[in-house]
Amino acid sequence: MIPKPVFRPPFNMTRASHVVLGVADLARSRAFYVDTIGFVVTAEEPNRLYLRGLEEACHHSLVLEAASHATCRRVGMRVLTDEDLDGAKAYFEAAGLQARWTEVEHQGRTLHTADPAGVPLEICATMETRPRQILVASAFHGGCPQRLDHFQVLTPQVTESLHFYAAMGFRLSEYIAMDGVEEPTAVFLQRKGNPHDIVFARGEGPRLHHAAFVVPETYHLMFVCDQLAENGFGGNVEFGPNRHFAPGFARFVYLRDPDGHRIELFTTHYQTIDSEDEPVRWNVSQLGRGWGARPPESWFSQATAFSGVAMREGSDAPAFGQHLKPR
Amino acid sequence: MIPKPVFRPPFNMTRASHVVLGVADLARSRAFYVDTIGFVVTAEEPNRLYLRGLEEACHHSLVLEAASHATCRRVGMRVLTDEDLDGAKAYFEAAGLQARWTEVEHQGRTLHTADPAGVPLEICATMETRPRQILVASAFHGGCPQRLDHFQVLTPQVTESLHFYAAMGFRLSEYIAMDGVEEPTAVFLQRKGNPHDIVFARGEGPRLHHAAFVVPETYHLMFVCDQLAENGFGGNVEFGPNRHFAPGFARFVYLRDPDGHRIELFTTHYQTIDSEDEPVRWNVSQLGRGWGARPPESWFSQATAFSGVAMREGSDAPAFGQHLKPR
Amino acid sequence: MIPKPVFRPPFNMTRASHVVLGVADLARSRAFYVDTIGFVVTAEEPNRLYLRGLEEACHHSLVLEAASHATCRRVGMRVLTDEDLDGAKAYFEAAGLQARWTEVEHQGRTLHTADPAGVPLEICATMETRPRQILVASAFHGGCPQRLDHFQVLTPQVTESLHFYAAMGFRLSEYIAMDGVEEPTAVFLQRKGNPHDIVFARGEGPRLHHAAFVVPETYHLMFVCDQLAENGFGGNVEFGPNRHFAPGFARFVYLRDPDGHRIELFTTHYQTIDSEDEPVRWNVSQLGRGWGARPPESWFSQATAFSGVAMREGSDAPAFGQHLKPR
Amino acid sequence: MIPKPVFRPPFNMTRASHVVLGVADLARSRAFYVDTIGFVVTAEEPNRLYLRGLEEACHHSLVLEAASHATCRRVGMRVLTDEDLDGAKAYFEAAGLQARWTEVEHQGRTLHTADPAGVPLEICATMETRPRQILVASAFHGGCPQRLDHFQVLTPQVTESLHFYAAMGFRLSEYIAMDGVEEPTAVFLQRKGNPHDIVFARGEGPRLHHAAFVVPETYHLMFVCDQLAENGFGGNVEFGPNRHFAPGFARFVYLRDPDGHRIELFTTHYQTIDSEDEPVRWNVSQLGRGWGARPPESWFSQATAFSGVAMREGSDAPAFGQHLKPR
Repeated sequence: MIPKPVFRPPFNMTRASHVVLGVADLARSRAFYVDTIGFVVTAEEPNRLYLRGLEEACHHSLVLEAASHATCRRVGMRVLTDEDLDGAKAYFEAAGLQARWTEVEHQGRTLHTADPAGVPLEICATMETRPRQILVASAFHGGCPQRLDHFQVLTPQVTESLHFYAAMGFRLSEYIAMDGVEEPTAVFLQRKGNPHDIVFARGEGPRLHHAAFVVPETYHLMFVCDQLAENGFGGNVEFGPNRHFAPGFARFVYLRDPDGHRIELFTTHYQTIDSEDEPVRWNVSQLGRGWGARPPESWFSQATAFSGVAMREGSDAPAFGQHLKPR
Repeated sequence: MIPKPVFRPPFNMTRASHVVLGVADLARSRAFYVDTIGFVVTAEEPNRLYLRGLEEACHHSLVLEAASHATCRRVGMRVLTDEDLDGAKAYFEAAGLQARWTEVEHQGRTLHTADPAGVPLEICATMETRPRQILVASAFHGGCPQRLDHFQVLTPQVTESLHFYAAMGFRLSEYIAMDGVEEPTAVFLQRKGNPHDIVFARGEGPRLHHAAFVVPETYHLMFVCDQLAENGFGGNVEFGPNRHFAPGFARFVYLRDPDGHRIELFTTHYQTIDSEDEPVRWNVSQLGRGWGARPPESWFSQATAFSGVAMREGSDAPAFGQHLKPR
Repeated sequence: MIPKPVFRPPFNMTRASHVVLGVADLARSRAFYVDTIGFVVTAEEPNRLYLRGLEEACHHSLVLEAASHATCRRVGMRVLTDEDLDGAKAYFEAAGLQARWTEVEHQGRTLHTADPAGVPLEICATMETRPRQILVASAFHGGCPQRLDHFQVLTPQVTESLHFYAAMGFRLSEYIAMDGVEEPTAVFLQRKGNPHDIVFARGEGPRLHHAAFVVPETYHLMFVCDQLAENGFGGNVEFGPNRHFAPGFARFVYLRDPDGHRIELFTTHYQTIDSEDEPVRWNVSQLGRGWGARPPESWFSQATAFSGVAMREGSDAPAFGQHLKPR
Repeated sequence: MIPKPVFRPPFNMTRASHVVLGVADLARSRAFYVDTIGFVVTAEEPNRLYLRGLEEACHHSLVLEAASHATCRRVGMRVLTDEDLDGAKAYFEAAGLQARWTEVEHQGRTLHTADPAGVPLEICATMETRPRQILVASAFHGGCPQRLDHFQVLTPQVTESLHFYAAMGFRLSEYIAMDGVEEPTAVFLQRKGNPHDIVFARGEGPRLHHAAFVVPETYHLMFVCDQLAENGFGGNVEFGPNRHFAPGFARFVYLRDPDGHRIELFTTHYQTIDSEDEPVRWNVSQLGRGWGARPPESWFSQATAFSGVAMREGSDAPAFGQHLKPR
């Protein structure tokens, strides 16, 4: 059930790259992401806002587009070179998935495809670059977001997703399963050497559960909430600050943006690069070993639909979180 | 309704001093307070554990006594000198409250009395001292509690308490009231120059809502929870980490000890010493301006009874928290 | 040599209040204090800038005045009430020191006098107030200075200063002395319940060594330096971040402003209120127990002269720092 | 002069792995690294101590061996698989460098070789693993070291090293050069996606300048120094806490262990994975843009010799640091 790692993948997908979200009111989203959380504005167009974290040299890791309703348009992944991009196209097509070249502003040659769970992917090897703002103290405000780290997707097709991504060279760092059940309920998959670039958790989907960005210290997890409250977004703090117990150790806070898209801010994660690193299994019964309040019901049930992607049928297995019990 | 400050009080009460809690299992309480939260053990007796914070030179700020059930035996207050202690006795007796000298180990001459709300007070001018541990890095662990800061008491007699303490020289730093109502629902009273030494909030009482201790940084609010979880106390994190909006600005976490006594850990508070500092009024409707989850119901309803003190009748005004609405 | 504490002082001086510095270029000082360190501007006049910390309700704790050369014009102290102000006048005059009423904008009735070391004092009971900015997250930037805490003065008259302030009710929290010598080299004197409102250290004087302001966390000690470097003030970081070992435990950084005035930013200090708290003595030989680099020579020798105050003759005892040895 | 990146390297070297230091007194080194800094002991033998960081699953990242004098015996690097290890052997041999298989306890098949600068390398694909301690709050003490990050080597052969490592697939993240000179003075080379796994700086060598370990927050950089001072190692804090300006943004402190080996503790670094990331060039004249004290002379001149490796002749170019000027 748990696939062997693939150390010589068919092409080199390197990391979670960017996400494109449809939002109802760009000015309101700008107030949330830029004025409050502290994202850097790379470019601003009438219908689109390109944002990045303080340490990012890439043109964008978060793209907000004017839309009639809240939606996730694309999840972006990076490959290392243009040759790897050709390899990606071949890999997806060999799996019976449509893949087509497209042009996306500020990005190099770009592939549009979808993974077996139906997540609309946008894959490129390069972007325009801008100077990192990491030495610019005056650019540090709010939560001081440093960079995009990973995505989490809800899907009834956790196992299919695991196998498809593992064959692309993604390593399984940790996974959660019902006690006594082999099939995982949530899988944490990574290419860049920390626990996750993309996570699949069992639930109605495909839907984007959250995109996660790194912040410098515990202090910023609290301070960004203060800034949110001051700017009228106090109710947008959904869960935390608290800490994860799977995967690994990371202090986090989950926010809902003005359209309901969920953003995780968290501090740094552990490194996992070596071939002998084995996936860590967590039984659902172990997850109560943390502290504090459980996630609210919304954290389990609400997520962002992908544009034009229908909900999928899947196994009858219960959704992630359904068996968690209070501490 | 709001009393004028008394700048020349009849005697000099200086600060919240210590609290004596009855606990069912001293070993279990030691595991919680010492091994997990990081209190310093000043002395350990078969039926009593004397604890203090890392920066405290006084012999104890937290005394745990073996008891058949969870109870608060005494709330300790300090006066500056023995002469002030005589002044205290005279003041309480003039108010028709019984006050008697008693001997308490490790303390100077000690007065036992009760305030108008029925809180059993233990007042002294001096204690034995021990070296502050503030330079001893190896003594810093868990939450690194620095010192006792204040108490919060639930009582139906908020207004009586306010007037009694104000006449002793306590300053009202902030208070909460129902919108359009003059009478306060919660009063924050202080002698030591930060917002509170003792707080009275409307509720069934008298009961001790919590004793609060200062920790160094935001980091410790999260880390102590990690340590609590590791030691089996993950479910004892009742509320937070979060931040207050009244009074002032303080990041906190509320814990329940193994007997259900509530402890607040929080970071530093603002200074308020000057004669022109006016009490800040907060309407209940303003308190939703913070962020994140509301306190759980237990935070409003549960508290520790004082040994041998009956619940009081009071005004029919609703308890604090009853009118707070979700964000 | 070490005076007994005076628990019933002739009047109630409460705390270090404010400092008035002469600066050559107000715009440059504004760039340093406001844009970089993060002070709140209460009022701005053509020749004067009134600043305060984020938590301060008082109109000003730092006043910058246009001047032909760098100077300290006044060190401000607070008494509790106007009656205490009369008491202060009587006390200083009884000691043979001139004291006269003056009018200072934004302050209540104000007394100008000087202490025995020659420090020009400005004493008042009240100031205009402004809302504390402690709940205004968007006002937090740079070092996030919270409030003025204390002053340090260089003087050949340490012992005279100690006795004069002690008789006013100041408590000696800690002091430094040469090994085997009874007379102190530096005395830490306090009224507000933490280790110091004013410090006298042996040296050519009277001169203002520094004014100290509290910042929230260790993080801010580093971050403010980043902001200083970005704004062209990287060379103004004189010493630290490091930590004190006397008095007590406080992490600090010393900055020189554009005129060479020294500012200390530090995190919180311990509480010392009780009558039994004894002064802690440190021998010079013990001070090497800290870590990292020693202060640069400038930290020992350079300080701000007081306007129109001549240097004093004093004992031939060596200046503070002269006998400190490398670690 | 600056080589093009090699995106399809001949084998997959993944990261800095471990370092083997010879120390004169294992008990004293244990007091420094374990009791004070907070490393986890994986195994302890009469003549050898195996240490790792809190988040590390690998058996060791720091090995201390009893030795007659301070020396660095090996710098360890990881490749992904055993097949990559064969590739490494072929690559070093093709470059005319001796490479031989050896057996090292707790490691898989291990290759001993040396790079063109003469650094003795120990390369393996796998190690025994132990549970990460990242969820064990009680294991967090002192500086809470998380994991090994990188090495810095002094050598007169910076350019040769750059080209040799670049051909192995190492990316040049940043480099320092004398103003107007093309040839670099210091090169930051990486495989794992942050700015460095190994750094070469011009100087008498080959010598190990330092090994660097990640700590969680700014707080720990200060706190570990407090713990060092308490344990008698206050003089071992050589430089900092301060922050880097090249490469990137990282807060650090440099320590000297009891044998004089230099350890850097620092907070997290930026991510650099993408093919379009260009090396950042810093002119020596720009490095004064930071803040605070310059490194002491020892930081530039002192380093650890490698066991049995002679000093090399190199270009006559001046050593790194020689042209840095005070701020």
